[in-house]
Amino acid sequence: MDNSKPTILVTNDDGVFAPGLRKLISIARLYGNVVVVAPDTAMSGMSHAITVKNPLRLRKIAEEDGYVEYSCNGTPVDSVKLGEKVVVRGKPDLVLSGINHGSNASVNVVYSGTMAAAIEACIDGIPSIGFSLLDYSHKADFNAVDKYIKRIIEDVLEHGLPQGVCLNVNIPAIKAHEIQGIKVCRQARGRWVESFDERIDPHERDYYWLTGVFEDGSADEDTDSWALANNFISVVPIHYDLTAHYALDNLKSRNLELKG
Amino acid sequence: MDNSKPTILVTNDDGVFAPGLRKLISIARLYGNVVVVAPDTAMSGMSHAITVKNPLRLRKIAEEDGYVEYSCNGTPVDSVKLGEKVVVRGKPDLVLSGINHGSNASVNVVYSGTMAAAIEACIDGIPSIGFSLLDYSHKADFNAVDKYIKRIIEDVLEHGLPQGVCLNVNIPAIKAHEIQGIKVCRQARGRWVESFDERIDPHERDYYWLTGVFEDGSADEDTDSWALANNFISVVPIHYDLTAHYALDNLKSRNLELKG
Repeated sequence: MDNSKPTILVTNDDGVFAPGLRKLISIARLYGNVVVVAPDTAMSGMSHAITVKNPLRLRKIAEEDGYVEYSCNGTPVDSVKLGEKVVVRGKPDLVLSGINHGSNASVNVVYSGTMAAAIEACIDGIPSIGFSLLDYSHKADFNAVDKYIKRIIEDVLEHGLPQGVCLNVNIPAIKAHEIQGIKVCRQARGRWVESFDERIDPHERDYYWLTGVFEDGSADEDTDSWALANNFISVVPIHYDLTAHYALDNLKSRNLELKG
Repeated sequence: MDNSKPTILVTNDDGVFAPGLRKLISIARLYGNVVVVAPDTAMSGMSHAITVKNPLRLRKIAEEDGYVEYSCNGTPVDSVKLGEKVVVRGKPDLVLSGINHGSNASVNVVYSGTMAAAIEACIDGIPSIGFSLLDYSHKADFNAVDKYIKRIIEDVLEHGLPQGVCLNVNIPAIKAHEIQGIKVCRQARGRWVESFDERIDPHERDYYWLTGVFEDGSADEDTDSWALANNFISVVPIHYDLTAHYALDNLKSRNLELKG
């Protein structure tokens, strides 16, 4: 192992066998010693969930000089914690999550296991990036986007990130020559219009499947939704201070704060 | 059912039988027709996870005039979705989550199922409040805090909340007469210093339990950590725009945005 190289922890939420993870590993290995800890099954929609009721287990899948790969029975956030505390036993220099199969732009970031893994690293003070390609298929073509992913990784390895900030990178599912470039933007305010598909099982009991259609809402030019719709790769700086600072004055002006 | 009364959806993440939920239900029933949908088991640390791999089920536990109660096999966020789309079949006027057994102040909000339920309602445009008491015990004394919880609920029922904002209310585990009042504040930047308790099972295989100690960091006077340490009830306005707006300029000044 070349100790002069950075240590890069790679994870995802689609599980250890997802093609998007394989692609991200192959890129990460160009830049450093790579440690992979990824969920052993698909963990989409797990957000920032952590496992507290069950013990966690790690399974070594591969090891060679400068590379080690594990799966775990936990969530993407568990994977980051295990990667740091049990495998690296220290702070990696960079955490990469993805490449997710499907969008984590707009409000999707709230539900995303991919981005939760990046945010977890960020809470621990480690520069981190979540990557997503807007193609749910396991046959998604990740080759068109190599040079953009490399440019973003190189930039973060060289310059770091502001404290408490990680990156949410989304890539439109289009041909390489159609990509207009990279655009730094803010999270759009889209939402899922959802319903439940109500069914009856063979034992006459109701059950429900969540279904939904994404509604982009007004996608202003400075948002990730606009960038993606206009063939740009979107980069949103993400933090974990959920305070709606603009609402503090409104709340303080009410008479909530009286004693007793 | 009195249709002039508001419809209040109540959920939690400690599960349908938790004393904190029972307390919140008893308060909610003073103000409206109450629909309860809560997880059938403890769902602490589930954050904004949703169930996509398994079908969801609802079980009716109780029903009387102006009150219906279900448990479900999903997460707190699933509970809100099922409550809205399957039980209420429309938008409730208010969503209440909790009372959580344990703190959701500072960075805990990121991991919290209680607050994820409130945020989910907020994404759907419904005023919502998450309540937490800083006492993990199931024998926690929720009686000292009635009047404060009532005041906050009354204020939100009367004045609503700014669009896209919900409330994260944390209550110190102290006697009623020691409470200094309610304080509107911002999320502190604390963090968990974690490690894994590494064990070997009877079959000689390693497994890991996540353990940790919370580190409050510098708790400035305008933060929830300060408020709680100084015997105030903390109220933080929370939103789901994770954009670190202050970091946009830094990122735009890099040469990421060049084409091709």
